[in-house]
Amino acid sequence: MTVKAYAAQAADQPLGPHAIERRAAGPDDVVIAIEYCGVCHSDLHTVRGEWGGTLFPCVPGHEIVGTVSAVGSAVTRFAPGDTVGVGCIVDSCRTCAACGEGLEQFCASGMTGTYNSRTPDAPGHTLGGYSEQIVVDQAYVLAIRHPKDQLAAVAPLLCAGITTWSPLRHWGAGPGKRVGVVGIGGLGHMGIKLARALGAEVTGFTTSPAKREAILALGAHHVVVSTDKAEMKAARESFGLIINTVSHSHDLDPFLMALARDGTMVMVGGPEKPHPMPTLFHMLTRRRSLAGSLIGGIAETQEMLDFCAEHGVVSDIELIRMEEIEAAYARMLQGDVRYRFVIDTGTI
Amino acid sequence: MTVKAYAAQAADQPLGPHAIERRAAGPDDVVIAIEYCGVCHSDLHTVRGEWGGTLFPCVPGHEIVGTVSAVGSAVTRFAPGDTVGVGCIVDSCRTCAACGEGLEQFCASGMTGTYNSRTPDAPGHTLGGYSEQIVVDQAYVLAIRHPKDQLAAVAPLLCAGITTWSPLRHWGAGPGKRVGVVGIGGLGHMGIKLARALGAEVTGFTTSPAKREAILALGAHHVVVSTDKAEMKAARESFGLIINTVSHSHDLDPFLMALARDGTMVMVGGPEKPHPMPTLFHMLTRRRSLAGSLIGGIAETQEMLDFCAEHGVVSDIELIRMEEIEAAYARMLQGDVRYRFVIDTGTI
Repeated sequence: MTVKAYAAQAADQPLGPHAIERRAAGPDDVVIAIEYCGVCHSDLHTVRGEWGGTLFPCVPGHEIVGTVSAVGSAVTRFAPGDTVGVGCIVDSCRTCAACGEGLEQFCASGMTGTYNSRTPDAPGHTLGGYSEQIVVDQAYVLAIRHPKDQLAAVAPLLCAGITTWSPLRHWGAGPGKRVGVVGIGGLGHMGIKLARALGAEVTGFTTSPAKREAILALGAHHVVVSTDKAEMKAARESFGLIINTVSHSHDLDPFLMALARDGTMVMVGGPEKPHPMPTLFHMLTRRRSLAGSLIGGIAETQEMLDFCAEHGVVSDIELIRMEEIEAAYARMLQGDVRYRFVIDTGTI
Repeated sequence: MTVKAYAAQAADQPLGPHAIERRAAGPDDVVIAIEYCGVCHSDLHTVRGEWGGTLFPCVPGHEIVGTVSAVGSAVTRFAPGDTVGVGCIVDSCRTCAACGEGLEQFCASGMTGTYNSRTPDAPGHTLGGYSEQIVVDQAYVLAIRHPKDQLAAVAPLLCAGITTWSPLRHWGAGPGKRVGVVGIGGLGHMGIKLARALGAEVTGFTTSPAKREAILALGAHHVVVSTDKAEMKAARESFGLIINTVSHSHDLDPFLMALARDGTMVMVGGPEKPHPMPTLFHMLTRRRSLAGSLIGGIAETQEMLDFCAEHGVVSDIELIRMEEIEAAYARMLQGDVRYRFVIDTGTI
């Protein structure tokens, strides 16, 4: 099956129209007509080869929402017409301890990413959601229960949502817990919405005083301008959990000091160059932890989607046409998006 | 009450005999005739002013074992003749949340250390265990239940023991848990003994292949030579908990990679210059944590002492005379001690 997509042919080439092959549906496969695909920073890093190892032609996109158009003979969980999602994972070994626990992102053999992972399908690597259709094993397809008119805004839940949901749940965000979210972009704005919906007392940390009202409007109870020393001093020893979504190298000490005793700061972004080593003294003297978290497993992604449908949580998005992608990347690099671009894939 | 002690008069002066005053026993005070005092790296850092803020004259020592010689009128927990210990903490605010939870080391007002902390007593700062006697509020005195002939070897439990016990307990060392201990010195050898006694599967990490047999003799099930790349590679993704006792700056990445998914490496030493920042990717891809821990509270110190008495756990020590202290410091700096010097304070 040949479908239209947008691909980069090389790291120094802009994205452009490109025809790709999708495999014929096997017994367990779900064929999905893609309607929306969110635009993640990882897409940009990958198409521009900034992390190394990009396989070209590269079709990025792992925040996919669409409608089931056909299913294989063994598919029991989905039927044509269902609204479904695909996130960052389209396969894994299914036999290791991590897969057994529903944590496919930590698969011992390495998960198969929705794009840029090795696969037997043509052209030998996976191709993502900047395309008209995708074929995915039912075990990696998510049910979407939001109203139809919210589907574009649901797309970013598949990566930005689960990337913040997973650590919020793992480290127990909920009533009685003070949660900080550092960096209010695509990930951070979801962190605030989800932490609030989970019942935590939520503070947004931003370098932009101008974002204060907007961050409160997302659901944060408090905003701290992290470049303001007095505000940061007042925030010391306050938080049980901080989700740090900032992917550029920065000083972690002020945020570690904002943790209460036994608090944890979870990093969910990978910086291009390392953060300075935090002062160990701040960790020892209040038994604080610095941790990392990576997207989330299929079961917890479904849990998050169901929670969001129930609580009316979606992303704040700016819908774009496919041909606007390079301009969107440029604005994303400037932090000029509130808070996620989503491609209307009907425009491919 | 004037008692004999050993003190440094300045950062560049060796320790020497010095007479100090101890306060008259108040209603809640326990007067302790010191018999043994362990020699901790902190003693050396402090007397030489390496951490800044040393108050002179400085009498170090916070691994104290002795016999109660007198008690104040309100003392109920101890009586003359009892064998007791004093660790790193001799007072705290007793009203903050941390004190309420028995975690006086995290006292919001700052704990009063056994030496080099401000106090109303002469000379205005606390003076430690390199002395004949000490006067301590009963709330900060520990009961020692080991046999009399083990008392010298009990002394290091008061700092080296509790510093490793606290994170072992807090992060759940026990049957079914693989625990690594990095750096087999005063702290590390206690980490191995305690983790083993708690029922964990214990691995010692050392840079010294020559220490292999000695580390197994301490109770480790396995030894990994951390400078051997093949051994470190074989150890990857193995440990639920690593206690890192190494206080000099070193590469944390190989040890983070030795953690299994959801594993934690707890740092208990403060390096003179920062460790290189570990690779965040290793934390994200297995949800690993880096944490800090600081000695332990009074209640958990008593718990540890009772556990050690029950399980026959003591330190491996080298008993020295007071006047040998500078030579002991010199050997300690070379790592030439198995595994803790203890002063026979009868020699002051």
